[in-house]
Amino acid sequence: MKSHQIEGVAERCHQDKHLEGMNRGRILLSCPDQPGVVAAVSQFLYENGANIIQSDQHSTDPEGGQLFMRVEFDLDQLSLHLDKLKSSFVNVASRYDMEWEMKTAASPKKTAIFVSKEDHCLLELLWQWQSGELDMDIKLVISNHDVCRPVVEKLDIPYYYIPVTKENKDQAEQEQFRLLEEYGVELIILARYMQILSPKYIERYPNRIINIHHSFLPAFVGANPYKSAHERGVKIIGATAHYVTEDLDQGPIIEQDVQRVSHRYNVDDLKKTGRYIERIVLARAVAWHLQDRVLTYHNKTVVFT
Amino acid sequence: MKSHQIEGVAERCHQDKHLEGMNRGRILLSCPDQPGVVAAVSQFLYENGANIIQSDQHSTDPEGGQLFMRVEFDLDQLSLHLDKLKSSFVNVASRYDMEWEMKTAASPKKTAIFVSKEDHCLLELLWQWQSGELDMDIKLVISNHDVCRPVVEKLDIPYYYIPVTKENKDQAEQEQFRLLEEYGVELIILARYMQILSPKYIERYPNRIINIHHSFLPAFVGANPYKSAHERGVKIIGATAHYVTEDLDQGPIIEQDVQRVSHRYNVDDLKKTGRYIERIVLARAVAWHLQDRVLTYHNKTVVFT
Amino acid sequence: MKSHQIEGVAERCHQDKHLEGMNRGRILLSCPDQPGVVAAVSQFLYENGANIIQSDQHSTDPEGGQLFMRVEFDLDQLSLHLDKLKSSFVNVASRYDMEWEMKTAASPKKTAIFVSKEDHCLLELLWQWQSGELDMDIKLVISNHDVCRPVVEKLDIPYYYIPVTKENKDQAEQEQFRLLEEYGVELIILARYMQILSPKYIERYPNRIINIHHSFLPAFVGANPYKSAHERGVKIIGATAHYVTEDLDQGPIIEQDVQRVSHRYNVDDLKKTGRYIERIVLARAVAWHLQDRVLTYHNKTVVFT
Amino acid sequence: MKSHQIEGVAERCHQDKHLEGMNRGRILLSCPDQPGVVAAVSQFLYENGANIIQSDQHSTDPEGGQLFMRVEFDLDQLSLHLDKLKSSFVNVASRYDMEWEMKTAASPKKTAIFVSKEDHCLLELLWQWQSGELDMDIKLVISNHDVCRPVVEKLDIPYYYIPVTKENKDQAEQEQFRLLEEYGVELIILARYMQILSPKYIERYPNRIINIHHSFLPAFVGANPYKSAHERGVKIIGATAHYVTEDLDQGPIIEQDVQRVSHRYNVDDLKKTGRYIERIVLARAVAWHLQDRVLTYHNKTVVFT
Repeated sequence: MKSHQIEGVAERCHQDKHLEGMNRGRILLSCPDQPGVVAAVSQFLYENGANIIQSDQHSTDPEGGQLFMRVEFDLDQLSLHLDKLKSSFVNVASRYDMEWEMKTAASPKKTAIFVSKEDHCLLELLWQWQSGELDMDIKLVISNHDVCRPVVEKLDIPYYYIPVTKENKDQAEQEQFRLLEEYGVELIILARYMQILSPKYIERYPNRIINIHHSFLPAFVGANPYKSAHERGVKIIGATAHYVTEDLDQGPIIEQDVQRVSHRYNVDDLKKTGRYIERIVLARAVAWHLQDRVLTYHNKTVVFT
Repeated sequence: MKSHQIEGVAERCHQDKHLEGMNRGRILLSCPDQPGVVAAVSQFLYENGANIIQSDQHSTDPEGGQLFMRVEFDLDQLSLHLDKLKSSFVNVASRYDMEWEMKTAASPKKTAIFVSKEDHCLLELLWQWQSGELDMDIKLVISNHDVCRPVVEKLDIPYYYIPVTKENKDQAEQEQFRLLEEYGVELIILARYMQILSPKYIERYPNRIINIHHSFLPAFVGANPYKSAHERGVKIIGATAHYVTEDLDQGPIIEQDVQRVSHRYNVDDLKKTGRYIERIVLARAVAWHLQDRVLTYHNKTVVFT
Repeated sequence: MKSHQIEGVAERCHQDKHLEGMNRGRILLSCPDQPGVVAAVSQFLYENGANIIQSDQHSTDPEGGQLFMRVEFDLDQLSLHLDKLKSSFVNVASRYDMEWEMKTAASPKKTAIFVSKEDHCLLELLWQWQSGELDMDIKLVISNHDVCRPVVEKLDIPYYYIPVTKENKDQAEQEQFRLLEEYGVELIILARYMQILSPKYIERYPNRIINIHHSFLPAFVGANPYKSAHERGVKIIGATAHYVTEDLDQGPIIEQDVQRVSHRYNVDDLKKTGRYIERIVLARAVAWHLQDRVLTYHNKTVVFT
Repeated sequence: MKSHQIEGVAERCHQDKHLEGMNRGRILLSCPDQPGVVAAVSQFLYENGANIIQSDQHSTDPEGGQLFMRVEFDLDQLSLHLDKLKSSFVNVASRYDMEWEMKTAASPKKTAIFVSKEDHCLLELLWQWQSGELDMDIKLVISNHDVCRPVVEKLDIPYYYIPVTKENKDQAEQEQFRLLEEYGVELIILARYMQILSPKYIERYPNRIINIHHSFLPAFVGANPYKSAHERGVKIIGATAHYVTEDLDQGPIIEQDVQRVSHRYNVDDLKKTGRYIERIVLARAVAWHLQDRVLTYHNKTVVFT
């Protein structure tokens, strides 16, 4: 993080987090539920000198269901021992047929933000990042418009303007992929990016692309949902943050929330409310992803908050 | 209200309300928006000796839109003068092409509650009615099952069990209409009544039938929406209270709200949450209707809270 | 539960819960945090043939802090083996210096509700109990007034009217203690019981008495806090549910919540809002206690929801 | 507003608002409640060719209480006629003993933001101002630290660093007053400004200084309320925005809200939550003030939202 804007508090805060992160590790796993899994994982950590800080689990069904676990632990100088620890865990994992990841909290995820013209979600992410509330390493911002460049570059974040048309779409994606690889991007946030990503994206970044969209009760299809919502006289406006899959807007839901509205809200007021709830919901979903709190299966999520 | 259960507080509370209601009146109107309407209405009330207690208005558009107004006023011994006051108001109303109603708050609305097997909404209505929070005169409960009879009859409210089948549906409705007329019912609350009302109902009781149904983001169709919601991994569960129109579940929305849920909620937990939010939302919508706070137009509502 | 009011749904629901409860056990423990605790507990359960359903833990500080754990597990015919399992666990517990409890979920807690004149909290508890949402065994209701008798006796719950004056306070408590012991009461709910309990109560029922009181921002002392709140023009009204300790209203907080209000609320409206939020907050706190989700230490709670 | 950051949307939005504001006026008044006030005001507007857009009123008591009114109206080329309209209104106002203001919405209020080291409230205000959600004219930022200068100056807003010590306090205030007058400031926002203002401020800017502070249930006094809240185990964290009066933190409350927390929140997490709720609550209070929606009396507010 190169920002020199927030002196004092945030700086110190980041430093503490860094030190804490050096020893802090996380295991995420899922496997068929059966007696002994929790015992095996916690025994493994104990024998390797680690102290469990937080352990969450969820079983879809104790009888023949799927078990999900997230364990956060401290181990002195974890960064140095991570590879060895991973190798040892293979035994435990194979015994219970686990899908698993083991990570250190030391290095914030390398992130790319995609944006079009509307900047409310981008600004909220930047704000929470500056204030130390989103622990990520923003490598670049990519946009199909040149609108948000000033606010991004003022924070010393590279801004890439890549126009997308029907004709150049494939070429534009190649350019995007090149950048994402160059920067080693681990997470893509679509902060109101108004282009549909090709299936190649989903293949390359499965459960690594977070999108935000408005939600209504009832749902409205078509070009101007806020106008429809106004005509229908809805009393709440919502937003949904989800991982991007091939089914447009149908990926695993990470977070949803709503705001109350009334008959006094005209279409513009509804849009304003929509922007507010979108930025809050997206930021929450991103925070949970950054802390490895989200597991997915069967097109839905387990969120250990 | 014949309940002798709640001594003291509620009894006194009802009495105060009754006295207050004797002098309290309400005008509800809508008309094409134009300068002078508020002046004309308030001038009329002033000249007739009334004091405005609360006045709310809403214009869909100051230029060529529709104006909605609700005025609550005090006038000494209103009940005696209501008819005369109404006659005088005709002049004002016709000058501005108003649709309007003038009512005294003295007499709580005569209400019928329809219920099937699930009793959570019924019980909430009865509870809020007993505690004086819903100022209505519950004349009868009608059900297509005999399940909820005991709780209703213990409160000295008549309970009519009218089974409905494909064959007897028309006849059953005739029986219901007879009862509704006999009791002079002004408001019908569908408290999880699992039968579709015929268009005749809507003709007879336009904007006088309130229904509650669950709502989901996204919407789920089919027989078991809670199962679908569980499979989709939604993070909020909602409910919508609306007036019943010919379009099933598409009538003007009076109130909506949601509750948060998580991956830990199984289908039963989701249903339990659904019941909770349904009873809260229905009770709110009914309260606003009873206080004449809801106006409708173009299939939506103006709710002056 | 003797209520014959709610046929069908609730009845079946209770039966399922009962069967599930037969095999379901819970361990609650706290001990100095150190590596190996989670491993030891889960290993113990595994070796005894139990499957962990949910495991929650919280450490006040990984270095020298206190660890809190709640484990829910299934073990075939637990009720038959509980005593033996407890004996075996003593070894694990003493190794880590644990305070602990092991319980079966089979038998709902025997509960006494104390009430004075205001019935809103009592009615909510009865409603949620009838609908199967509060899994408790209401043995009796004790009141210093005879106001709420009808609603209680109609549900076949014994109602004891024990007036309390300055003069007879000690004697009245003796009578209450006799009843509580006779019925084997495990949990006391003060549902707006307007008498201060003597320290003897707290000794006998530590963390077994739940109280509800209103809360305001800022706090108001004195006889009529709603009047003070109105004069101060607060915008939210809250309620706090807590365990009763010797410090009046200062015991460990289990749950808090608020409702929005506005300048339009007169003192009565504020009280009505207060009643609503009180019944919701108390019911939530009771539900968590009944499911053994609440641990206390240092005058505060860990609530594993 | 000199910001050239937000092209497109915001720019157009501000323009529309400007045009709308040219014709839009607001009357705020309070007077002893009596029949005829609403009639007189609406008649006055009608006779002067104005169309009422929104009219809100509140009476503390229909019998001998105080009436509060806010009327928003459109009048062609209001800005040109405002002085004349004001002169004519004097007659109406004196007849009913009104305190009143009449304003055009054309000119956003000239605002000064005071800040110390913590920037979360400042950033939210700047963000909402940039996005067009807070319609104000930020003339300057004053701080007793030099911490937030970069983010302010990048938006072309003058930043004045005026250190305050016990010794120079009086002199520092003189310097502040000089700046506030030079810029014609109409509203002062204390966005976490950690200095107590002298009574001279309150005299000069009555109901024109908005402050934000954290709120807790129960209240905690002393230097580190978040530590106390953590020790007490509170379940919600709140914030209160109010006008500054001589009684520290005791001025009329404009807005309050809360966020849920749990035992998992350490002191830092509580502070983070506190920052979030503070920025939301302050921004709401400021928005309502900017739209002339807040009237005060007897140390409380009427907020017409």
